[in-house]
Amino acid sequence: MPSQPPLAVGLIGAGRMGSFHATTLARRIPGVRLAAVADPVPDAARRLADHLDAPVAYTDIAAFLADPEIDAVVIATPARTHADLVEAAARAGKAVYCEKPMAVTLADADRAVSAAREAGVALQVGFNRRYDEGFRAAHDKVAAGSIGTPQLLRSLTRDPKLADPAPIPPWTIFLETLIHDFDTLRFLNPGAEAVEVFALADALVRPDFKDRGLLDTAVVTIRFDNGALATAEANFQAVYGYDVRGEVFGSAGMLTMGEVRRTHLTSYGPDGVSAESVSYDQDLFRDAYVAELADFTDCVRAGRAPAVTGEDARAALAIALAAIESVTTGGPVRVERAAE
Amino acid sequence: MPSQPPLAVGLIGAGRMGSFHATTLARRIPGVRLAAVADPVPDAARRLADHLDAPVAYTDIAAFLADPEIDAVVIATPARTHADLVEAAARAGKAVYCEKPMAVTLADADRAVSAAREAGVALQVGFNRRYDEGFRAAHDKVAAGSIGTPQLLRSLTRDPKLADPAPIPPWTIFLETLIHDFDTLRFLNPGAEAVEVFALADALVRPDFKDRGLLDTAVVTIRFDNGALATAEANFQAVYGYDVRGEVFGSAGMLTMGEVRRTHLTSYGPDGVSAESVSYDQDLFRDAYVAELADFTDCVRAGRAPAVTGEDARAALAIALAAIESVTTGGPVRVERAAE
Amino acid sequence: MPSQPPLAVGLIGAGRMGSFHATTLARRIPGVRLAAVADPVPDAARRLADHLDAPVAYTDIAAFLADPEIDAVVIATPARTHADLVEAAARAGKAVYCEKPMAVTLADADRAVSAAREAGVALQVGFNRRYDEGFRAAHDKVAAGSIGTPQLLRSLTRDPKLADPAPIPPWTIFLETLIHDFDTLRFLNPGAEAVEVFALADALVRPDFKDRGLLDTAVVTIRFDNGALATAEANFQAVYGYDVRGEVFGSAGMLTMGEVRRTHLTSYGPDGVSAESVSYDQDLFRDAYVAELADFTDCVRAGRAPAVTGEDARAALAIALAAIESVTTGGPVRVERAAE
Amino acid sequence: MPSQPPLAVGLIGAGRMGSFHATTLARRIPGVRLAAVADPVPDAARRLADHLDAPVAYTDIAAFLADPEIDAVVIATPARTHADLVEAAARAGKAVYCEKPMAVTLADADRAVSAAREAGVALQVGFNRRYDEGFRAAHDKVAAGSIGTPQLLRSLTRDPKLADPAPIPPWTIFLETLIHDFDTLRFLNPGAEAVEVFALADALVRPDFKDRGLLDTAVVTIRFDNGALATAEANFQAVYGYDVRGEVFGSAGMLTMGEVRRTHLTSYGPDGVSAESVSYDQDLFRDAYVAELADFTDCVRAGRAPAVTGEDARAALAIALAAIESVTTGGPVRVERAAE
Repeated sequence: MPSQPPLAVGLIGAGRMGSFHATTLARRIPGVRLAAVADPVPDAARRLADHLDAPVAYTDIAAFLADPEIDAVVIATPARTHADLVEAAARAGKAVYCEKPMAVTLADADRAVSAAREAGVALQVGFNRRYDEGFRAAHDKVAAGSIGTPQLLRSLTRDPKLADPAPIPPWTIFLETLIHDFDTLRFLNPGAEAVEVFALADALVRPDFKDRGLLDTAVVTIRFDNGALATAEANFQAVYGYDVRGEVFGSAGMLTMGEVRRTHLTSYGPDGVSAESVSYDQDLFRDAYVAELADFTDCVRAGRAPAVTGEDARAALAIALAAIESVTTGGPVRVERAAE
Repeated sequence: MPSQPPLAVGLIGAGRMGSFHATTLARRIPGVRLAAVADPVPDAARRLADHLDAPVAYTDIAAFLADPEIDAVVIATPARTHADLVEAAARAGKAVYCEKPMAVTLADADRAVSAAREAGVALQVGFNRRYDEGFRAAHDKVAAGSIGTPQLLRSLTRDPKLADPAPIPPWTIFLETLIHDFDTLRFLNPGAEAVEVFALADALVRPDFKDRGLLDTAVVTIRFDNGALATAEANFQAVYGYDVRGEVFGSAGMLTMGEVRRTHLTSYGPDGVSAESVSYDQDLFRDAYVAELADFTDCVRAGRAPAVTGEDARAALAIALAAIESVTTGGPVRVERAAE
Repeated sequence: MPSQPPLAVGLIGAGRMGSFHATTLARRIPGVRLAAVADPVPDAARRLADHLDAPVAYTDIAAFLADPEIDAVVIATPARTHADLVEAAARAGKAVYCEKPMAVTLADADRAVSAAREAGVALQVGFNRRYDEGFRAAHDKVAAGSIGTPQLLRSLTRDPKLADPAPIPPWTIFLETLIHDFDTLRFLNPGAEAVEVFALADALVRPDFKDRGLLDTAVVTIRFDNGALATAEANFQAVYGYDVRGEVFGSAGMLTMGEVRRTHLTSYGPDGVSAESVSYDQDLFRDAYVAELADFTDCVRAGRAPAVTGEDARAALAIALAAIESVTTGGPVRVERAAE
Repeated sequence: MPSQPPLAVGLIGAGRMGSFHATTLARRIPGVRLAAVADPVPDAARRLADHLDAPVAYTDIAAFLADPEIDAVVIATPARTHADLVEAAARAGKAVYCEKPMAVTLADADRAVSAAREAGVALQVGFNRRYDEGFRAAHDKVAAGSIGTPQLLRSLTRDPKLADPAPIPPWTIFLETLIHDFDTLRFLNPGAEAVEVFALADALVRPDFKDRGLLDTAVVTIRFDNGALATAEANFQAVYGYDVRGEVFGSAGMLTMGEVRRTHLTSYGPDGVSAESVSYDQDLFRDAYVAELADFTDCVRAGRAPAVTGEDARAALAIALAAIESVTTGGPVRVERAAE
């Protein structure tokens, strides 16, 4: 390790998630350094770079991508910019880690995947649950046949509170929240692909935002090509905290995942037995967030392929788009398969 | 108690469930006696009556219903005979407890409900989960507003093993298994009614039985008229035992129900932490089965209305029939409301 | 079953526990009838007998024991009367079930055991935890060698609230509460016997009662002759409900027992995750109380030996008396073994 | 943060625990650098220093302590060397973090504490459970009065497997294992001090080592000066993994701590419900090990007093020595209080 220079990683997008990833890159992963921060907002990149002792800050993304000191980039900008940035970064020869969703149209997703393939660079997507110990152990058991053939699956995400609704584009619940669950269902049903989707969605948390198209509650039923039936659920405001759970039921057993307890402390009082719950995603998946970037940088250094690919991102997006169409048409929708 | 003569209850149907109910009536409920057993199968009623010291056994149901010694009847025959028996018993002036489903068509359900109403007799239906302590406490909390407005619900039933498939009519999973979950969802979402249903079903446990129409795995999505979105799930073969769970998520909290552990013993060994699971429905709901018959007989003696009515049975059936139509047509189906 | 007349059981002691046992005998156990109730308090026996349709009530215990209609007796009187009643009942030829403690001196215990042996009648003692499904399953696993050789054990009892202290004799916590734990430790360490005891006790719940000798909190350490080290704990006032737990740690694994949750309902709210706890012993051990009397009456009818013997009661008492001596002397105390 | 130079910390003792702490210092704590490694074993310090890019390695401890570049030292050498090293480091003006036990005699403990006090340097001791989120939350609740007055406490440590027994000095179970539990009991009973100790110990895991004085199983009963009664338990070989638990029962409630599940994954199969357990201390307390060093270095930089002091180490040692004397004498032993 001492003989090899550290991998230089640059971050694009100095918001909440970007700052978290930058801190991880700067301080938590041996053999990696935070080489630069880029953000078009004046001073945003500079402040984060200074805070983490990163040597360079950019407001011009093109200049950032042209920096020869940077080996790999982490994209943590708003979703609609992802595909273009993946494409540009790949063409600049950088290995790319992109937050989910990698794209919001299938054409964009195909373009991003192609760009990385043509450039011969690694492309990894931020489905962090794949790096959570419980979900990963479940996947491994399913893949090893421990529960036989999957027949019924469930994945759910309930955010701890409604984010400020103003900037949320329509269909956020499918493209940014349930996209995790769609990937999780594929992860827990290895080798199978979604065939048909039926979705219901509504504005139950904030009915007053329904006119603006903001849906905050959704249930999606998915039929997979191995026969398995799955349900994905999301809601933007769980008063008890951040709730992420999974379940796979198969011919030979069942696995359940998810933890809403914040610590191992249990309290017993006159009102019964109680425990504190988790209030924030970075508490629940703290180790997973570090593990995914550590694995990405390992892949780049070792020249091996990432575990969560652009094709995975494309497949989850296809489910999300089918769900949106199902809500729009009121009926079940076939999932568009990638061209082979 | 000593001054009042015991309530005389007669049982129709001396099979597995009927024998269980007969034992409960004979031995577990103070102030109640098992007055007669009826079953058209020669000797079936006689053997059960002898075993439980019931004074009379009938093979002729009409003669049974004409017996003036019998105050109330418990119907535990095959599902397709229920509605006719409810009607006949009501016309004979008997209070009626009928196993679920009370009917398999809406016309039959309406006829059974009308007969009881016209005869002025109590009619209770065997949705035993309403008498389970956990489900009942959940209902009470929801009804009291503890979790605010219900937004997402879930109910599932997984039987411990595939019953002998030969005699199972098509659509059994909806009419006899999921009917419990449909009732549970209504119970956990008090005052709301189902509006729309989408169902997927398949033969995943025994693909070889699919030709005969036997579906063993199903997922049903339901939209309720208060906006809540619900999922009901069933499967005929859980290798780990009998699995019945519920969940209600609302604007102010969440409740989960269900117990797959058989006892409070936990074992810790080289392979981890483990517990035994429940293998049979009468283990899981033993107390609930007694409680529902105790409540029914209390209602009859006190002249009060039962807690689980023929109208409840009709509403659950309407969801089941919509689910069957959804599987047949491949699209979502509106739930037929009762004529007011 | 129909051909055999029911076993006639008489109850002595119409208090809280006696009433509970009488109800069980009258209504919950097939093949058994409550033949008589005896209590020296005028009207106490009569009221209970009337309530349960028992044909006879006695205030004269000698007359009760002389009643030839009675096959077996259940003793639920104050602890200090137990040994004499066991002896008298045995001499009258009745099978005997005696609530714990069977005696409060070793001489009394030996006398009771001898009387039953000489009379050739069954003698069972009310250590109800042996009939709880979880504790029994633990015992069976230990006996089968599942956890290897026991090395560390724990048993605890915390009552849901301080009973009215006035009538409680000194040392109640050892003779009436911890006696359960001493028996449980023997049950979970099959074949081993206590060798040495060290006890600490105090009046922490009600320090003002310490002058009257009422100790409400105790910790007892026990060394068994197979090397295992055990701890028994008790307290008279757990604000969160009735708390009974056990633990056996062995060379090949560990078992834990105990349930403080009242139902399988879990609530999730802004303050975390919670569940209701058990508030009363007859809730927690309801099934065990029925099972122990069912087993006792089965023993009597079948002529087989009871599972919880007078010798077991003697062994638990020897530990309790050693604990009392340890508190008195401030040092460890050897446990007095039964004469072989 | 960028304007302040990093705190230079030197490590003494390049064994298993030392390597773990060195990695934490080098990579996990912002504003801290691993300035040097010292170990008298030739090459041990050099290898670890090279691996972690630490600039200097020493085999001469005196030279290490004389290095003016080092602000603070972390002592992770064998227990019997701790007190001398604390004293020497304090005299050299270094802030000191010392692994537990800080000393193995009370005279040594007093000497180490005095040396730090006289030198005016921070002295923190490695009771890492105080930095575990669950134990810390429990302490905070007790300190805030949430469970009223503590009456019964329990702390236990069961190591995942018997370490190689040859180099283990007699009394290791008290001085190195149970010392954690003694500190935990003080932490969970804030402000109270141990008054009296009774201990039983044996060689149950490896009876063949008893001759060499190696005790592998112990139960210690402690009376505190606020009346609370406590139990500490240890065993060197839990086949199911590393097991650390705590419990505080008070007049207004109870708290339980401890986690033996490795992840949130639960498996349901034909043999029941199961989960994987934790196999290693650095898995269970990974975050706590980082948090204690982060807090220590924060204390040094901020000039504030550490949360776990030399006096805490002295108090836990006094309990351990009383337990050893109790095993030797067979009776209860008074705990020697520090001279005020």
